[in-house]
Amino acid sequence: MKLLDCTLRDGGYYTNWDFDRELVKAYFDAFNNLPIDYLEIGYRSNSMNSYLGEYFYCPQYVLEDAKINSSKKLVIILNEKDVRAEHVPDLLEPCVGYITMVRIAIDPKNFKRALSLAEAVKKLGFEVGFNVMYMSNWENEKEFLGQIKEINGIVDYFYMVDSFGGVYPEDVRKTFDIVRNQTDTKIGFHGHNNLQLALVNTLTAIDCGVSIVDTTVTGMGRGAGNLQTELLLTALNGKGELDLDFNALSKVVDPFEAMQKEYGWGTNLPYMVSGANSLPQKEVMSWVTKRFYSLNSIIRALSNQSKGIEDNIDLKNLEEEKKFKLALIIGGGPSGKKHAKAINEFIDKQEDICLIHSSSKNSQEFKDVHKLQIHCLAGNEGHRLEDSYSEMNIKDKLVVLPPYPRTMGTYIPESLEDVAFQLQEISFTDKFHESVTSLAIETALKLGVEKFYFAGYDGYSGEIKAQELELFNENEYIFERLKENGNYTPIAITPTLYDSLEPQSVFALI
Amino acid sequence: MKLLDCTLRDGGYYTNWDFDRELVKAYFDAFNNLPIDYLEIGYRSNSMNSYLGEYFYCPQYVLEDAKINSSKKLVIILNEKDVRAEHVPDLLEPCVGYITMVRIAIDPKNFKRALSLAEAVKKLGFEVGFNVMYMSNWENEKEFLGQIKEINGIVDYFYMVDSFGGVYPEDVRKTFDIVRNQTDTKIGFHGHNNLQLALVNTLTAIDCGVSIVDTTVTGMGRGAGNLQTELLLTALNGKGELDLDFNALSKVVDPFEAMQKEYGWGTNLPYMVSGANSLPQKEVMSWVTKRFYSLNSIIRALSNQSKGIEDNIDLKNLEEEKKFKLALIIGGGPSGKKHAKAINEFIDKQEDICLIHSSSKNSQEFKDVHKLQIHCLAGNEGHRLEDSYSEMNIKDKLVVLPPYPRTMGTYIPESLEDVAFQLQEISFTDKFHESVTSLAIETALKLGVEKFYFAGYDGYSGEIKAQELELFNENEYIFERLKENGNYTPIAITPTLYDSLEPQSVFALI
Repeated sequence: MKLLDCTLRDGGYYTNWDFDRELVKAYFDAFNNLPIDYLEIGYRSNSMNSYLGEYFYCPQYVLEDAKINSSKKLVIILNEKDVRAEHVPDLLEPCVGYITMVRIAIDPKNFKRALSLAEAVKKLGFEVGFNVMYMSNWENEKEFLGQIKEINGIVDYFYMVDSFGGVYPEDVRKTFDIVRNQTDTKIGFHGHNNLQLALVNTLTAIDCGVSIVDTTVTGMGRGAGNLQTELLLTALNGKGELDLDFNALSKVVDPFEAMQKEYGWGTNLPYMVSGANSLPQKEVMSWVTKRFYSLNSIIRALSNQSKGIEDNIDLKNLEEEKKFKLALIIGGGPSGKKHAKAINEFIDKQEDICLIHSSSKNSQEFKDVHKLQIHCLAGNEGHRLEDSYSEMNIKDKLVVLPPYPRTMGTYIPESLEDVAFQLQEISFTDKFHESVTSLAIETALKLGVEKFYFAGYDGYSGEIKAQELELFNENEYIFERLKENGNYTPIAITPTLYDSLEPQSVFALI
Repeated sequence: MKLLDCTLRDGGYYTNWDFDRELVKAYFDAFNNLPIDYLEIGYRSNSMNSYLGEYFYCPQYVLEDAKINSSKKLVIILNEKDVRAEHVPDLLEPCVGYITMVRIAIDPKNFKRALSLAEAVKKLGFEVGFNVMYMSNWENEKEFLGQIKEINGIVDYFYMVDSFGGVYPEDVRKTFDIVRNQTDTKIGFHGHNNLQLALVNTLTAIDCGVSIVDTTVTGMGRGAGNLQTELLLTALNGKGELDLDFNALSKVVDPFEAMQKEYGWGTNLPYMVSGANSLPQKEVMSWVTKRFYSLNSIIRALSNQSKGIEDNIDLKNLEEEKKFKLALIIGGGPSGKKHAKAINEFIDKQEDICLIHSSSKNSQEFKDVHKLQIHCLAGNEGHRLEDSYSEMNIKDKLVVLPPYPRTMGTYIPESLEDVAFQLQEISFTDKFHESVTSLAIETALKLGVEKFYFAGYDGYSGEIKAQELELFNENEYIFERLKENGNYTPIAITPTLYDSLEPQSVFALI
């Protein structure tokens, strides 16, 4: 039974495949004293359209350095999605003499195509590993299951990859048996840790008779991460199955643990949910982080999607029954509350204005305004709006939802169902159609608005989180589209850090 | 099958049983919407000799608040070690009407005594839970195993507690069968997560037919922590076995996740090692944190201890062949290196001085000194010394070890074996006999030293870590003992933050 550590390859998802040189040296040093057979150091790849670091391309000097510093068999991996047999000479000839095994990451749907890639790799004399993904969904991949036997003579290690971290030990046994019935090729297991089952699944795979398993130091790897190298080694040592230099182990664990504090890999509730339901963790995470959606609605929507259930309601389209010259769009920034008194006076003074709430956060401050108030219900705003009003008077109220069908389904507080409309399309911007700001602006345009005021669009200061920065950039992009597409001048009447908004003061306007 | 959440009780190990009122309210609110049956809110306890917070004593207003805010059955726990049947009226009568179940945490060695405590508890009408610890060692507890049947009619839930987080699913099955053969009483399982096996062990226990299992939010609990409530619920929901309000779940997970960043519960290499070898994690952690010992030596020493193996060598005692008037004790602080040139000159000027290295960190700076140099080898210093010298000239060298037998065994670099001695005792201080500074001072006293100089004892500035503070206080205590017990005046010749050292400047002395 062989062990493979793929920390640099799988951990690269967090560092964009750049690693400190000292760290890599310490990594190789420590592993020279640890009972691991293979080290996968990264990808080899054709040129991609974005910056990706050293270990995504593994140029020849990286291979040389690794060969000098490591006494282990070295491995690189190819992304089958982006690599064809004709790329093999360019990508892999420089690896000859440095690399023992070339692995190929494969979507089972492309299994047949992967086989011809494997043949080209095999010709150069490498061991070939097949990392076939989405193991928890293989039962739906009948075509692929019928093709497994074709690996005989081409592939050295056929890996079952638990991409969602959602399989249980009994699933490992079942899938192992299915594969073993198709081929005598050595089998491997690569587990993810969403449900903290990576260790028990890997031990189960070993018990079934797999020939190789993967780990990474501290579990560093995409999303919830992998089986921790230190956990498998410590467990096998505890069972008396291998000798272990704990000092070497702790020398490599320490620096990666420090990085983990910064990058935060490891499982959490959204990743657990992905694992337990075989849902793509990338989507779950991006929806959770942006906080537009509640976990319940994400899970409901994703489960429905994966079951092909449509939980959308096709509402009436918003029509321009009444036109307005001015709109005040109120976001969720603290200034919306802080300057609420002045904003209320400003609204009072305008003849022909409508209020559009892109967030429920400040909407309570304007509950006594007797002009048309529109609430934009993208994402989780339906629930938030419900939470923020004990009872809602629907006089002069409208709620507007994004165009049908909506990613996250339809949720409208019951008392507002009669005044709920959807936009037919969002046309003023080519991107960010799920943004509440886009929704607010498109609504205003639909109502004939010519002058756009914004309040509560403060931006973010101090230490800015990545997701805040993303939201900020998104809004800037949206404001720019409004300016370009209609020659409008969006005006912020409360303090703002958005460059695209023209700053004025609400106090000068009342 | 019942679920019990014991976040406040088990999490208290990190917060000393104080929790923010808002957090507790949010905790109860969320659980009112979650499919959990019992909430264990804390201990009831006789008065202890140290500060322990609100949820360690659970005064009556805490019980009342919990009862008002929670719709769940409430539980408290007693530490059998500290509670006798005669304490039951005082401790438990105030709980009547608020608390449904009283659990008792039990060392299997005290099982018989626990039974009479249980009878007293049962008389007050509570459900009684028995949390019997150290499940992975039960096979050595024959007496206890023979007594299990005596719980019939007294105990409602008999818990198998995996205290070390070291059992595997097959162990859960085996132990369940052993218990089931002794009693028809309902069985429970409480898993720890050192090897990330808490989920699979708990699911296995459920499959065996246990009637109750424990979890805590984010796994908050002593050391590596518990099975995460959110993980068990998500897994059971994924298997279609219960409905789950993920919004409620995420409302309680969020604040505890934030606390986890501060307190850092969860598994790590030392906890894994404890789990895999059924070693007490408290000891492993305290040895690792102080950094006196390497992980290898801790594991070797603890495994040897648990197997009854003595890996100590009884060395020759250090004798006062030659006396010295002065000693310069050199610690590991940066000033030892920074001012090495001046310190070397200072040493040269003294007639009757010996050098005592309490750390290997700065010892290289004094390799050309031709006076007696003594290296203190406590903890891991033997390995460090070996690492810092490529070859060591043993002329004018001695190494001194703590008195026999030593907690962590004996490690002496091979080339130094002939010049290695141990102290017969450490008598000038009543505490910290394993400290390198104690060792250095006792050595100097043994050699008749009357004047104590210190270099490289800088103390710590800026953001001080808990373990640095502990070390600092330890050293202050040791210096004070030296001053008291012999009327010595320890002098620091490099910059120092220790109040007990009299500051002088090495530059004034050369």
